[in-house]
Amino acid sequence: MSAYLAEPRDLYHGRALCVLKPGSARQVAEILALCNEAGAPVTAQGGNTGLVGGQTPDASGASIVLSLERLNRIRGVDAAADAMTVEAGVTLAQAQDAAQDAQRYFPLSLASEGSCTIGGNLATNAGGVHVLAHGSMRDLVLGVEVALADGRLLSTLGALRKDNTGYDLTRLFVGSEGTLGVITAATLKLFPRPRSRAVAFLGLRDPDQALDLLNFVKGRAGPTLNAFEVLSRVGLELVLRHIPGTRDPLAQPHAWYALIELAAFSEGEAERAAADLLAAAHDAGLAQDATLAQSLDQAQALWKLRESMSDAQKREGGSIKHDIAVPVNEIPRFIEEAGRRLRAAFPQARPVPFGHMGDGNIHYNVSQPVGGDKAEFLSRWADVNAVVHGVVGELGGSISAEHGIGRLKRDLLRETKDPVALDAMRAIKAALDPNGILNPGVLL
Amino acid sequence: MSAYLAEPRDLYHGRALCVLKPGSARQVAEILALCNEAGAPVTAQGGNTGLVGGQTPDASGASIVLSLERLNRIRGVDAAADAMTVEAGVTLAQAQDAAQDAQRYFPLSLASEGSCTIGGNLATNAGGVHVLAHGSMRDLVLGVEVALADGRLLSTLGALRKDNTGYDLTRLFVGSEGTLGVITAATLKLFPRPRSRAVAFLGLRDPDQALDLLNFVKGRAGPTLNAFEVLSRVGLELVLRHIPGTRDPLAQPHAWYALIELAAFSEGEAERAAADLLAAAHDAGLAQDATLAQSLDQAQALWKLRESMSDAQKREGGSIKHDIAVPVNEIPRFIEEAGRRLRAAFPQARPVPFGHMGDGNIHYNVSQPVGGDKAEFLSRWADVNAVVHGVVGELGGSISAEHGIGRLKRDLLRETKDPVALDAMRAIKAALDPNGILNPGVLL
Repeated sequence: MSAYLAEPRDLYHGRALCVLKPGSARQVAEILALCNEAGAPVTAQGGNTGLVGGQTPDASGASIVLSLERLNRIRGVDAAADAMTVEAGVTLAQAQDAAQDAQRYFPLSLASEGSCTIGGNLATNAGGVHVLAHGSMRDLVLGVEVALADGRLLSTLGALRKDNTGYDLTRLFVGSEGTLGVITAATLKLFPRPRSRAVAFLGLRDPDQALDLLNFVKGRAGPTLNAFEVLSRVGLELVLRHIPGTRDPLAQPHAWYALIELAAFSEGEAERAAADLLAAAHDAGLAQDATLAQSLDQAQALWKLRESMSDAQKREGGSIKHDIAVPVNEIPRFIEEAGRRLRAAFPQARPVPFGHMGDGNIHYNVSQPVGGDKAEFLSRWADVNAVVHGVVGELGGSISAEHGIGRLKRDLLRETKDPVALDAMRAIKAALDPNGILNPGVLL
Repeated sequence: MSAYLAEPRDLYHGRALCVLKPGSARQVAEILALCNEAGAPVTAQGGNTGLVGGQTPDASGASIVLSLERLNRIRGVDAAADAMTVEAGVTLAQAQDAAQDAQRYFPLSLASEGSCTIGGNLATNAGGVHVLAHGSMRDLVLGVEVALADGRLLSTLGALRKDNTGYDLTRLFVGSEGTLGVITAATLKLFPRPRSRAVAFLGLRDPDQALDLLNFVKGRAGPTLNAFEVLSRVGLELVLRHIPGTRDPLAQPHAWYALIELAAFSEGEAERAAADLLAAAHDAGLAQDATLAQSLDQAQALWKLRESMSDAQKREGGSIKHDIAVPVNEIPRFIEEAGRRLRAAFPQARPVPFGHMGDGNIHYNVSQPVGGDKAEFLSRWADVNAVVHGVVGELGGSISAEHGIGRLKRDLLRETKDPVALDAMRAIKAALDPNGILNPGVLL
């Protein structure tokens, strides 16, 4: 069972009574009915790539791990209705491919897409690099099929674009981290396939310039803006040091970088628009230097710099993670203020902020001091969190922009969330899972 | 109190203990606290334009009407964060204007926008003519402030684009028709303002051709497609007969019509794209005739034909309404089959289908026989519903695409909705409003 009992960051190791691998939604429901009767806790698991421990059972050994991996059918792709229904165990990459095969586009995209599953993406309301243009998983779903705690199957599946017949159950289950029901399938929105795509990498002075650039790009590129990511020189150097086959795409070093992707519906439009944009941004003094990918390979090489950030940090040693959001225009203030306070409290620690600036979402990770002791640094996790989340709170931000709460941030949620909202969540949890069998210890 | 006790269709007339007009969210909460203690039912009301009786108290006279009209402040427009926070009593038109003043765009648009309010738009998850491009109200909201039944205020307000800290309470309240809490304010998403817009009116052979045209337009116009509405010749003739200042925009009559709006981010782009599109559609044999508005006045005149449909039907006599959705590609089959069965059961009745074809949402209204008795025709409301909703059910559709359930469709909901979903809704209702004071008799 060991593969099901630990998660990718090695932060959580659980124990379990057994791992069950049902082969149908009906079987999932039957398992829940039995567990509900017996009062046996159930931890649902998809691709086991989650970053907050939501898929890992606790240490008691009382929990059943319910793996959705065998629910891996694409039930149907309806290109005419721009919708497809897939089971929870289908990987994100398989879902993207199924859309592609039908001449459509499913925009959710994230580093673990080869192994994470649609069920996990739904349970955690996954984000990724195209939220700016298309939203998070909650925005990409038309309906779900869910096994409830009492063993009944609830379905809102279907290709309807509008349905005002009562409460939004679909989106209530999406992002509930397996605590309200186990999602067994979903109908997902499909989009027209972009016919052109352009990726640019720009050298910037500081986060203020990044914000000016973002606003400039939004004003000119409008809905063709598909991604606006940032990273710092510190982060780029970690990637260049640890990730084979990477190279600095610009001649000179810059303190900050933006990766911009445009996607357009007409042939050649994104490339033309990106070239115009870079020239205009240069004329407006909004970038120190820039390069535009001239081939798919070059575009992938630029994206690799961004997508290797977590991996590079892991290889560099201990890294204390944050997945925060603030209003987009507060990003520079957040980065400056968090940096200032961290330098004061932990002079040797190295902030490595990067992420989805276009969404106001920064992975404000902090790498251990050079040559320091990893375990000793990681023992300061809560203290570092407190500094960073203090700034987040002052700016009206969120302590979890896209990874969810899981076990990692459960106590933090209690401290930071509006208590009235927390009470409402607990009331809903009690209404739908009165015996508390679904992912106990996660989220609430 | 009479203005608060009847609704625009004259289908419902209620009685009330009193009408309360609180001036702040805090006062709304205090009223609910008192009502909760006293077990007094509360009917929340915005602009009183809802079409399903959700804002009308029942006949008992026990209910308090809670008008949100005095909560009419724009709390703040943050153009840099593409967000604005407005109170529930702000009209949709005022909200649109506030966005416009900040060089931004709030896309929700519907016929009653001058008098309907944001609170009502939220409570009913309002749709309208731009859902195709931007979604319904649920897609346009970042956060809400809600007075709960127990008198506490819950807030998810704020300009965050991403926030994965627990259940999606925001969207649970949106569309709950005042049965889970009273929304007092919301943070809404703003969008870049389109710099060009083009409106075309096309004569078509039948709904099949409309679907072919829709797919053709989606394939060519992609995200610039802002609206795709249809109406039949029967409907157009009612408008031409009853609405002053309207004229047939095409030289010859056609059995069906599509109104297409393109909106683009660059100057002149929508006009160019629309001209190309009409030429290509003509070459592909997808339209019998077409006209492209050459001025804002002409564009408004074309939209007026579509937006006067309900009014024209009202002037023509009794009209039995449906607000249905089916998967977009099933629209022709739905229209054909519903027409066939209605002709068999009610040979003199006149179906006047029109609406948001791009969303799969048709207002399948049925006008009374020429010269017949209005009251007698309207007495067949449930029978006509049964025929139309029978087809909807067979096609996996929804009996309420955008108007909600209210009192009008409450019994129908019980008959048509997945009973497991209904049970889940009832459990949530009981969890958040245990004394059942909020809009009793509405929705559930």
